[in-house]
Amino acid sequence: MLLDGKALSNKIKDEIKSKTKNYLIKPTLAVIQIGNDEASNIYIRTKAKACEYVGINFIHTKFEEEALEQEIINKIIELNNDPYVNGILIQLPIPSKFNQYKLLNLINKDKDVDGLTNINMGMLFKGNNNLIPCTPNGIIKLLEEYNIDLKGKHAVVVGRSNLVGKPLSMLLLQKDATVTICHSKTEHLDYFTKQADILISAVGKKDLITKEMVKENAVVIDVGMNRVDGKLYGDVNYDEIKDIASYITPVPGGVGPMTVAMLLYNVLRNYEKNL
Amino acid sequence: MLLDGKALSNKIKDEIKSKTKNYLIKPTLAVIQIGNDEASNIYIRTKAKACEYVGINFIHTKFEEEALEQEIINKIIELNNDPYVNGILIQLPIPSKFNQYKLLNLINKDKDVDGLTNINMGMLFKGNNNLIPCTPNGIIKLLEEYNIDLKGKHAVVVGRSNLVGKPLSMLLLQKDATVTICHSKTEHLDYFTKQADILISAVGKKDLITKEMVKENAVVIDVGMNRVDGKLYGDVNYDEIKDIASYITPVPGGVGPMTVAMLLYNVLRNYEKNL
Repeated sequence: MLLDGKALSNKIKDEIKSKTKNYLIKPTLAVIQIGNDEASNIYIRTKAKACEYVGINFIHTKFEEEALEQEIINKIIELNNDPYVNGILIQLPIPSKFNQYKLLNLINKDKDVDGLTNINMGMLFKGNNNLIPCTPNGIIKLLEEYNIDLKGKHAVVVGRSNLVGKPLSMLLLQKDATVTICHSKTEHLDYFTKQADILISAVGKKDLITKEMVKENAVVIDVGMNRVDGKLYGDVNYDEIKDIASYITPVPGGVGPMTVAMLLYNVLRNYEKNL
Repeated sequence: MLLDGKALSNKIKDEIKSKTKNYLIKPTLAVIQIGNDEASNIYIRTKAKACEYVGINFIHTKFEEEALEQEIINKIIELNNDPYVNGILIQLPIPSKFNQYKLLNLINKDKDVDGLTNINMGMLFKGNNNLIPCTPNGIIKLLEEYNIDLKGKHAVVVGRSNLVGKPLSMLLLQKDATVTICHSKTEHLDYFTKQADILISAVGKKDLITKEMVKENAVVIDVGMNRVDGKLYGDVNYDEIKDIASYITPVPGGVGPMTVAMLLYNVLRNYEKNL
């Protein structure tokens, strides 16, 4: 059975839209871009369009790669202090000459809609969630939508990134799953993936997960976004696995749309907290 | 083979002592106690003695259970601002009428020698370690001392506390182990423990881990501290397992002494950072 992230994300967006309709002052998301990365341009356009659709103001501040760090810092402080700004994100990646870590952590924890500041990561880690990174949050929402119970289930997460693998592991743990975290140094990856009741791959490698690696009736979540010859593939060999899995996310149309929906959700959450 | 935490902690303490000997101004640890919990009194005396031994000043501030929250907050701020204080900890547990979470997070991240503030937890989570909780840090040091390689090994952590299970899982992951986190809602705990190359139990339940649950030649780390009829027991049935495991920590004399040693280590680290 398909885990339809597209459909759920549309549902969430429509819920947000129906709320913002009633607000005279609209929620606002501020996106900071540094440099001119082509993929970033696309992602930012997608976010702008989604904001427009749901009735969230979108402020896009673009700095040249030659910008001074202090200019960017000043902008973050300005946005932190602006009561009309409900969410701030720095579009990643940023040029390597900038200290991404430092800039990210300047964002006020209650406007950090990507959930990537130390303090929000720490709160998630301790089980006292504030703002949660959008992709893992979207995955949990998708599992909830299909009433997939996680309690006591064995969830195997492949990938240990700060953006997906680690925060997702914490969320699965909060849902009482037994969680195994695998990564590039894991020996015999298939030994672990074959045990999974819930298998999540967040690596970025086409055909990493083949049918021999999946248990009958497993729930398979594919976070991979691999562009090959202009076509988008996940980490999971979908055609091989769709008949083995009980549930599976397609790529595209699975986890991807959920990420943007959860970003909008985080912006609205901050806005409504201040009503 | 025994993982001798007592011996290693003595070695670390002697190293710290040999350093503080050369410092005219000694490092300082401030401990805040609220109420009069008997176990806390004992733990604080142990820490005071250890500080005395290694040449670290020990400031003990004890508040009555009737104290006002603001008095405690003022004390934390005072200690944060005192350049001669290198470490601050609040002895847990504190009476439930106080907001432990709020008080802990007032401690300056660079004096938070227990590593329990949101920000230090977040930094650990993201792999950008600042101050690390003492028990998990002590376990890693103990494994390092015996040259136990973690890369690609399957580490199974039983217990998901903020004090031990979760931070330890992150440290094991940083050492490139494949990590499974089990807990009270895990079904068939033995199914997981039997897979472990490195098995860590941090639950607090005597005889939780029996010989049927341990793989031949596993490394077994016992974080349990269970007092029964005045005697201290771990989570692991030591007598049953000592001949199966390749390495095992005794209780007492394993992980326990390492915790205090790492506290002193954190205080010295902060002191030397400001030299």
